[in-house]
Amino acid sequence: MSDTSPDPETETEAEADENEDVYALDSARVEAILKAVEAEDHAQLIALLEPLHAADRADLLEQIGRDERRELVRVWGEDFDGDVLSELEEGVRDEVLELLEPEVLAHAVQELETDDLVYLVEDMEEPRKAEFLGALEDTDRVAVEASLQYDEDTAGRLMSRSMVICPPHWTVGEAIDYMRAHEDLPDLFYKVILVDARMHVAGTVMLSSIMANRREVKLLDLADTNPRLIPVDQSNEDVAYAFNQYHLVSAAVVDADERLVGVITIDDAMEVLQDETEEDMKRLAGLGDEELSDTVIDTAKARFPWLAVNLVTAILASLVIAIFEATIQAVVALAVLMPIVASMGGNAATQTLTVAVRALATRDLTPANAWRIIRRETLVGFGNGLAFAVIVGVVGQVWFGSWLLAGVLAAAMVINLLVAGIAGILIPMALDRAGADPALASGTFVTTVTDVVGFFAFLGLAAAFLL
Amino acid sequence: MSDTSPDPETETEAEADENEDVYALDSARVEAILKAVEAEDHAQLIALLEPLHAADRADLLEQIGRDERRELVRVWGEDFDGDVLSELEEGVRDEVLELLEPEVLAHAVQELETDDLVYLVEDMEEPRKAEFLGALEDTDRVAVEASLQYDEDTAGRLMSRSMVICPPHWTVGEAIDYMRAHEDLPDLFYKVILVDARMHVAGTVMLSSIMANRREVKLLDLADTNPRLIPVDQSNEDVAYAFNQYHLVSAAVVDADERLVGVITIDDAMEVLQDETEEDMKRLAGLGDEELSDTVIDTAKARFPWLAVNLVTAILASLVIAIFEATIQAVVALAVLMPIVASMGGNAATQTLTVAVRALATRDLTPANAWRIIRRETLVGFGNGLAFAVIVGVVGQVWFGSWLLAGVLAAAMVINLLVAGIAGILIPMALDRAGADPALASGTFVTTVTDVVGFFAFLGLAAAFLL
Repeated sequence: MSDTSPDPETETEAEADENEDVYALDSARVEAILKAVEAEDHAQLIALLEPLHAADRADLLEQIGRDERRELVRVWGEDFDGDVLSELEEGVRDEVLELLEPEVLAHAVQELETDDLVYLVEDMEEPRKAEFLGALEDTDRVAVEASLQYDEDTAGRLMSRSMVICPPHWTVGEAIDYMRAHEDLPDLFYKVILVDARMHVAGTVMLSSIMANRREVKLLDLADTNPRLIPVDQSNEDVAYAFNQYHLVSAAVVDADERLVGVITIDDAMEVLQDETEEDMKRLAGLGDEELSDTVIDTAKARFPWLAVNLVTAILASLVIAIFEATIQAVVALAVLMPIVASMGGNAATQTLTVAVRALATRDLTPANAWRIIRRETLVGFGNGLAFAVIVGVVGQVWFGSWLLAGVLAAAMVINLLVAGIAGILIPMALDRAGADPALASGTFVTTVTDVVGFFAFLGLAAAFLL
Repeated sequence: MSDTSPDPETETEAEADENEDVYALDSARVEAILKAVEAEDHAQLIALLEPLHAADRADLLEQIGRDERRELVRVWGEDFDGDVLSELEEGVRDEVLELLEPEVLAHAVQELETDDLVYLVEDMEEPRKAEFLGALEDTDRVAVEASLQYDEDTAGRLMSRSMVICPPHWTVGEAIDYMRAHEDLPDLFYKVILVDARMHVAGTVMLSSIMANRREVKLLDLADTNPRLIPVDQSNEDVAYAFNQYHLVSAAVVDADERLVGVITIDDAMEVLQDETEEDMKRLAGLGDEELSDTVIDTAKARFPWLAVNLVTAILASLVIAIFEATIQAVVALAVLMPIVASMGGNAATQTLTVAVRALATRDLTPANAWRIIRRETLVGFGNGLAFAVIVGVVGQVWFGSWLLAGVLAAAMVINLLVAGIAGILIPMALDRAGADPALASGTFVTTVTDVVGFFAFLGLAAAFLL
């Protein structure tokens, strides 16, 4: 962990301005940095960047413009810091990698751990990738190449190969002596892993237990002899779930023969967990993998397909309306009121859908409670349908003075909110069961259902009872 | 950390059924547990619960029905496990607390850390709270009461008071000897905090550094002497952000006089971070604090207000349509096509809105890049508006054979997608600046804007050019 000191001057400024977020980059510093870049004042730039954590330097690079970024990297020059690379979002990272001179890059990444190196290299194109790997030290290159043999988004890519292992028969004293003598320990580790001659995990011992016990105590007596092991081909998502559910801090990763191959720590798992949740959130909104620093063209292109799908479903709904053109011609109030039914259905469905997607992601929706949740969502839809039927019934009567129109509106509301509840829960569950991502397509399917049912129920009932 | 062994039998079953989630509770075990409960077979129940982690036992309690839950707790009896309580979601936790006999509860919570005790006690009503506090050991009660003096959702509530502190002048050897002699160390810790006589933090030393160095090395030489300190009144959200942004594993918490008062560890921060993201996701969908185990009535009540707000905005949109009743009467095709414009606007706005809410939460949208992002969203809206104008123009012409109608539809599409982009970014930014939660109200405001503008632009242009 490389904590950097908050600059005292900045702290005071942040305190002065109550609206400024505690941890956000303050505008004054960003301006000063850009001024130093413009003046090509390398020393001043380094002085301003010095107090910032690598993650904040990365945020800075992401938030300034493309031209400013190029100039900043140029003036930064050979002091460019490898940690920043692993904090950058993909688009900006690739841009910065292009900007860096090969020597600068080779120097910058020297201090990185192998999991960060893997993150940098995994998306590189071939000539560049070979060049990058060639510039690494031999041990790093071997470790990175080994990691790249595992599938993306699996434990194999996520894990680090730097870990501390001991034979199971050692004592606390032997372990401490070994660690004191060993130069190349990982920067940070929480557990010592006990492995036998075949690299099978016999247990794990927390550093805090080693600390708290006398030299002659046997490690095996302090060990968790049945730790949760992560299969090397397990998906990132499952790994993150296990860390979150079981409050793991680090976990040993094993291959198909149960041999220890690496270790995953909580900070990596935390990142994956956040990414997965963010992905669900974006997919529910019809967003792909876009990043804030993407260009206008890239962003527009990324959003186009989802809007196109929505257009098709909107046209489907229009086709339903078209069936009832004559009815609308006769009672134009129907055109005024029909969006209310569709809108309420869409909203109620989105509520249920979001609950379902979230519960599936956190594995709180399982065969054990599926029927209860389906029943609950159906009844909630029906209940709120009745409540809003009364309200819109009154609105319809007051507005258009027709009890019959009000009744049709009310009936359509009950039907659509009931259907919204059922579709909102069943569609994501069906997608999940079919092995698809429930967040991905549910929104489209579900609002198509509520639009079509909403218009059909309202206009159909109107055609039957009002004409 | 109390890892429990996966039951070998269960593992094989899970492997046999590819569709079963790796970590989800398997239905066979749930059934067996419920059967043991029905048979009032305490020994069998304990044998079945034994291999499960407390978090999985909590999931089980959440997923079964209310009656089954009562019976399970009864048969479980005095072996009921306190760790389960801190894993339960609020509604079920309160229900289970009611079910437990006072002696069973007092026994169950004996092993809990103070932060877990605080979580249990903070929502209790008065007679029960006093009773619960009275049953605690003195040291625990004092610690819990001290924590309760801090505001909810701040670092003071989140932190633990169990930590390991040393004077700054100690050596590695002295620290190790102290820890070996000390009976009451926290279950798990990653750092030793160096404090002077006034409890000011002089630095923090990772256990892994202590391990790797000789007895005579001074702790201060291994210390991070400028660690990130968390103010005790800092909001949970800021704490979680700091852990995520700066990859912290644990951080010292200090009071207004910079005196050390506690320590927050990454697992607590990870939980807060997940909760905050989940909250944004739910608020964007118009959901409150509901839980999966809530009853039908509670769920329907919780969702009602958001649907009511949506009804008001839907009626607003209907009022716009009502202005153009005569136009629709003359050209009924308008009623058929108008939902397309509104729906596309709502969708495009939701995309932009979600990006904005997420970027504000992760503090990637700051004064430094606000204008660039506003400009980008405006241009993306305009660009996709043009693209879809062409498409719906063709659709309109083919369907209704009128170039004029097609032109009106196309123009309304450009206007509405442009407005969607602008409203989708400006409304959440304005709410954030005003100190409100951008996720909370944005959805309603933004779709009202796109509905109203969509209908007004389409029907207004139609009234002007088609009649």
